[in-house]
Amino acid sequence: MVVILQKNATEQQIENIINHLKSFGFQIHQSTGAEKTIIGAIGVKPNFDIRNISILDGVEEVYRVTTPFKLASRSFQEHNTIVKVKDVEIGGNKLVMMSGPCSIETEEQIFKLAKIVADSGAKILRGGAFKPRTSPYTFQGLGEEGLKLMRAAADEYNLLVITEVMQNEQIDLIYKYTDIFQVGARNMQNFSLLKELGKVDKPIMLKRGIAATIEEWLMSAEYILSGGNKDVILCERGIRTFENYTRNTFDLSAIPVVHKKSHLPVIADPSHATGLRDQVPPMARAAVAAGADGLMIEIHHDPEKALSDGPQALLPETYLKLMDELQNIAEAIGRTLI
Amino acid sequence: MVVILQKNATEQQIENIINHLKSFGFQIHQSTGAEKTIIGAIGVKPNFDIRNISILDGVEEVYRVTTPFKLASRSFQEHNTIVKVKDVEIGGNKLVMMSGPCSIETEEQIFKLAKIVADSGAKILRGGAFKPRTSPYTFQGLGEEGLKLMRAAADEYNLLVITEVMQNEQIDLIYKYTDIFQVGARNMQNFSLLKELGKVDKPIMLKRGIAATIEEWLMSAEYILSGGNKDVILCERGIRTFENYTRNTFDLSAIPVVHKKSHLPVIADPSHATGLRDQVPPMARAAVAAGADGLMIEIHHDPEKALSDGPQALLPETYLKLMDELQNIAEAIGRTLI
Amino acid sequence: MVVILQKNATEQQIENIINHLKSFGFQIHQSTGAEKTIIGAIGVKPNFDIRNISILDGVEEVYRVTTPFKLASRSFQEHNTIVKVKDVEIGGNKLVMMSGPCSIETEEQIFKLAKIVADSGAKILRGGAFKPRTSPYTFQGLGEEGLKLMRAAADEYNLLVITEVMQNEQIDLIYKYTDIFQVGARNMQNFSLLKELGKVDKPIMLKRGIAATIEEWLMSAEYILSGGNKDVILCERGIRTFENYTRNTFDLSAIPVVHKKSHLPVIADPSHATGLRDQVPPMARAAVAAGADGLMIEIHHDPEKALSDGPQALLPETYLKLMDELQNIAEAIGRTLI
Amino acid sequence: MVVILQKNATEQQIENIINHLKSFGFQIHQSTGAEKTIIGAIGVKPNFDIRNISILDGVEEVYRVTTPFKLASRSFQEHNTIVKVKDVEIGGNKLVMMSGPCSIETEEQIFKLAKIVADSGAKILRGGAFKPRTSPYTFQGLGEEGLKLMRAAADEYNLLVITEVMQNEQIDLIYKYTDIFQVGARNMQNFSLLKELGKVDKPIMLKRGIAATIEEWLMSAEYILSGGNKDVILCERGIRTFENYTRNTFDLSAIPVVHKKSHLPVIADPSHATGLRDQVPPMARAAVAAGADGLMIEIHHDPEKALSDGPQALLPETYLKLMDELQNIAEAIGRTLI
Repeated sequence: MVVILQKNATEQQIENIINHLKSFGFQIHQSTGAEKTIIGAIGVKPNFDIRNISILDGVEEVYRVTTPFKLASRSFQEHNTIVKVKDVEIGGNKLVMMSGPCSIETEEQIFKLAKIVADSGAKILRGGAFKPRTSPYTFQGLGEEGLKLMRAAADEYNLLVITEVMQNEQIDLIYKYTDIFQVGARNMQNFSLLKELGKVDKPIMLKRGIAATIEEWLMSAEYILSGGNKDVILCERGIRTFENYTRNTFDLSAIPVVHKKSHLPVIADPSHATGLRDQVPPMARAAVAAGADGLMIEIHHDPEKALSDGPQALLPETYLKLMDELQNIAEAIGRTLI
Repeated sequence: MVVILQKNATEQQIENIINHLKSFGFQIHQSTGAEKTIIGAIGVKPNFDIRNISILDGVEEVYRVTTPFKLASRSFQEHNTIVKVKDVEIGGNKLVMMSGPCSIETEEQIFKLAKIVADSGAKILRGGAFKPRTSPYTFQGLGEEGLKLMRAAADEYNLLVITEVMQNEQIDLIYKYTDIFQVGARNMQNFSLLKELGKVDKPIMLKRGIAATIEEWLMSAEYILSGGNKDVILCERGIRTFENYTRNTFDLSAIPVVHKKSHLPVIADPSHATGLRDQVPPMARAAVAAGADGLMIEIHHDPEKALSDGPQALLPETYLKLMDELQNIAEAIGRTLI
Repeated sequence: MVVILQKNATEQQIENIINHLKSFGFQIHQSTGAEKTIIGAIGVKPNFDIRNISILDGVEEVYRVTTPFKLASRSFQEHNTIVKVKDVEIGGNKLVMMSGPCSIETEEQIFKLAKIVADSGAKILRGGAFKPRTSPYTFQGLGEEGLKLMRAAADEYNLLVITEVMQNEQIDLIYKYTDIFQVGARNMQNFSLLKELGKVDKPIMLKRGIAATIEEWLMSAEYILSGGNKDVILCERGIRTFENYTRNTFDLSAIPVVHKKSHLPVIADPSHATGLRDQVPPMARAAVAAGADGLMIEIHHDPEKALSDGPQALLPETYLKLMDELQNIAEAIGRTLI
Repeated sequence: MVVILQKNATEQQIENIINHLKSFGFQIHQSTGAEKTIIGAIGVKPNFDIRNISILDGVEEVYRVTTPFKLASRSFQEHNTIVKVKDVEIGGNKLVMMSGPCSIETEEQIFKLAKIVADSGAKILRGGAFKPRTSPYTFQGLGEEGLKLMRAAADEYNLLVITEVMQNEQIDLIYKYTDIFQVGARNMQNFSLLKELGKVDKPIMLKRGIAATIEEWLMSAEYILSGGNKDVILCERGIRTFENYTRNTFDLSAIPVVHKKSHLPVIADPSHATGLRDQVPPMARAAVAAGADGLMIEIHHDPEKALSDGPQALLPETYLKLMDELQNIAEAIGRTLI
């Protein structure tokens, strides 16, 4: 931690500040310049609230200096984490596609879509059985029935399953059917849930909250990692800004930043980021070009009848064409898709 | 719902759009102008996703027109909701103060603070026993032991209790000790929790999410109201913006807007909005002047030793002086505080 | 400036970083802890771009430490700046009201409104002759004719004049008619204009840009101050956020922050911040309670016929009632209005 | 324009609203449903402020329906605008590269960089002679001397020139040396400047303001177009959001949106969007994949000595490697770069 003193801080104020720092267990290094006095406080603990120092008389500014996350940081682990689920690796040179409907609706629907996913060369089937919806009046998901249908469809076409968990009570049930747990954007800071998922022995994909900083996102990953579960995958899905012509602002700059700050893989979700079908292909291409380790994409064979998010689902033929383009872009940057 | 067609929409596109609207059960009113054709679609259901129409060929723009919340709206109930808890009314002409520490820490602490709260004329004691913390390495609250201490302190000084609930499993336990449940900003869209709280027979104070629009906030209130619990209190506590010199941007404009759109009372929390003690008094005064129905304020007699959020806690003497100023401002706008 | 090194920075990287710092003229203080090495670099010049150090190998983070503004800072001048214009003081204990129409429209209009302003006890007449409009198709102001009318009306009722300057070529002309120049939000970073206004011997009111940080706002004040003009008044008028139910988010927290960081007076403009008449009174009251040194308020006796921003103009009777409330709130916090 | 009435609007209020609409020259279509009455008002003029209707009693919501820009809209011109400058086309299938230093510094520097730009296959040399700087204490550009050097260097290597204009007085001077005028982000709403540039017979590249909505950006383009200059090029360069780990958030979703709403070409500037050299290549690749019509990229052969923005300048070797990758990505989506 670095403490900058006010230009006109008195001797007594400085002494008081130093005593406070020592009482919190810091080692002190003081640098007195012509203009400013700076105190370096070594040994900041992850649970220290720097505002305890900011409010002291004579203090101008305090910087934490160390990132508040540790296990998630690149300085803790230099090499990339590669999450292995059966024969699929997430975070390696080969990109990973997670495709499927927003919600599981019927047996026919999920089997039809699973076949398209498998035919496209993707390895992971996505689909929601428990749905967090802004409105209490909209479709809330099929529940366990949906999980059963998705598992059966995935097994039929040799796919892995990823599905969302919304609360602690659902973990055991979902565990029986899924290969990867997804934590949605609205639950990124549901700390009770994150703690429980830290104890699970299956990978967790953690979506970025709609207004979460990259630091908060990595802090939420830290909750899972510090619980003992090392298999955390991040997923960028758009952030909230002042712009209204788009549903969210897809923050692709987050991808190289996360790769620099952390060793965890990052997936991008252009379907939720844009919310409209015709913007999904350009943003999917951009995410691959920006260095995403994979994509999550919503598809539907009959989107007008979809029970949720139909307008952002790609039609099968658009999806297959997009897969070809993504393959070309992946190759252009020295990676592969299929 | 209003559908604006593209200037060059073809006859066939228009027919297709109208057929779609009819298949969703809408009544149609078509207005054809020189420049634009507009279709009014009457009878939009709360669960209708307007993007189903936006993506049709020939459509330029779609407006929902009706607000997606109903029970929370001023048009559903014209008169103000007044939440009654024992002898305290929230939402009436008299403002309500909810004061106390961020976290309950010890018996001595909570009794000392409860006395200050009671002496100040406030009627409600705030304090957290379960704490949602960004970092897994920080103090997470005393749990049930904290609830017991707070209840005892409140009873001793004839105060009501408000405390935060973070997950479904805590509801029954907290119910035994609290008068009002608080839902924190991070859980504003924890829909499972909101649904459960809709079945509870005690009032719920719903904090606005850090990046929630006023509409989403009222939609979350709708979850509780539609579950049958009519006693919902809103609480503005600062939103996330680009500005870094403040912790959050305290959105006081939300207060008159909520009062226009909804009949529910609105409390303001300047402690979390600013995060620093010296900004709490001016923002508390501003909130009262803007029309808030009450304030939630953090206080501590020894904030340097507080286990959480000490830097934003007011010292007792500052708090008592502030109460006097607030009383004067309340009177200046024809309301009372104590 | 404080430079934090990466945990695993090599000897050679550290040497290279230190050499760079020395070549830029810094004095160096190195603190080596168990976890982190920190280099304090004393003597940062205001024009130094800290990214020159951030990009060196082995560097984790760089903090500037000193604020980039100097003349505008509270550490440069401890006492409040009081801007004196004839017999009016801006920044003292007495609040200042600047009231009038958005645009000057006709002789009758401006004389009628000037009379209302004077009757209300306000001392400054506001009104625009050159209007920055988002659309090229809207009313752009009366130009010099408007200035003449406003000056005559102000003189008739013994008021001061404040009006907006949009470009360098207008300065000489406007100088002849105004007492205070206003720089609008869209020109807050029109640096050519700020430089020219630094040479003028009349006060400048600098509105905050719609997405300007407080730091950038003070940097723009620095342009004027460093040109030699010490009479700078700041004006908060709402910032852009994700919220759509309000036109802007009125950032009242900026008021105590500016008062802490700077010695310059701060005016608040609730008319532009909210954009709708019925939200102006509560936000005007809140601004006074938050500590603003004055208010700028738009009024119109026939707002439906106003050529610009009619919907945010207060009717005379609402304005006069508001003045009474503001007087009461000012007194509640130990200040006066009239 | 569509006017939604309050559920409980009275007969008299409705009559008053309709009279207002008629007095503004609108044709009226009224649709009365069970729940809501909707009035379609045909013939909205571009200068109409819809708040004039929002504030009437009985009105719940008003939607403008028509975009406020016209000449810039896709519905005004269906085919893409291709801006031709000598033998270069901007907006066609071939992408356009604008490369060079942030500021022109010396003859040696600009000639060296112009050679690199020409060798890379790019056709346009960028460089600033007049620099808008946040701080009054930093390098403000070489002025005309810089323009002369850049023109000479461009002519030597057969390149076109693009450079920034900051104020009306500079237009004639810059006109003598440049092929394309650039309007910077801070001047996007400097309407006096936009009006003057509407009369110029050279193309204008209009950067998006740091907090400008896409609609405001297109409105600013409208200022230039309505002045008679049809050769407008847009440039996305990052927007301001809450995220601090990146300098700006590069809004790549804006590219497909602009292509849908407007016929104007869109360039992307990853150098200013990210502000740090190592994030430029992934974001440059992403912009091409998202459909940008070209890129503006800063390069420097000795960035540590650069007088402005050195940290975001690519080294020549990184730049040349990036050009190869971009060529591959362009081909992957059916376009070409060189």
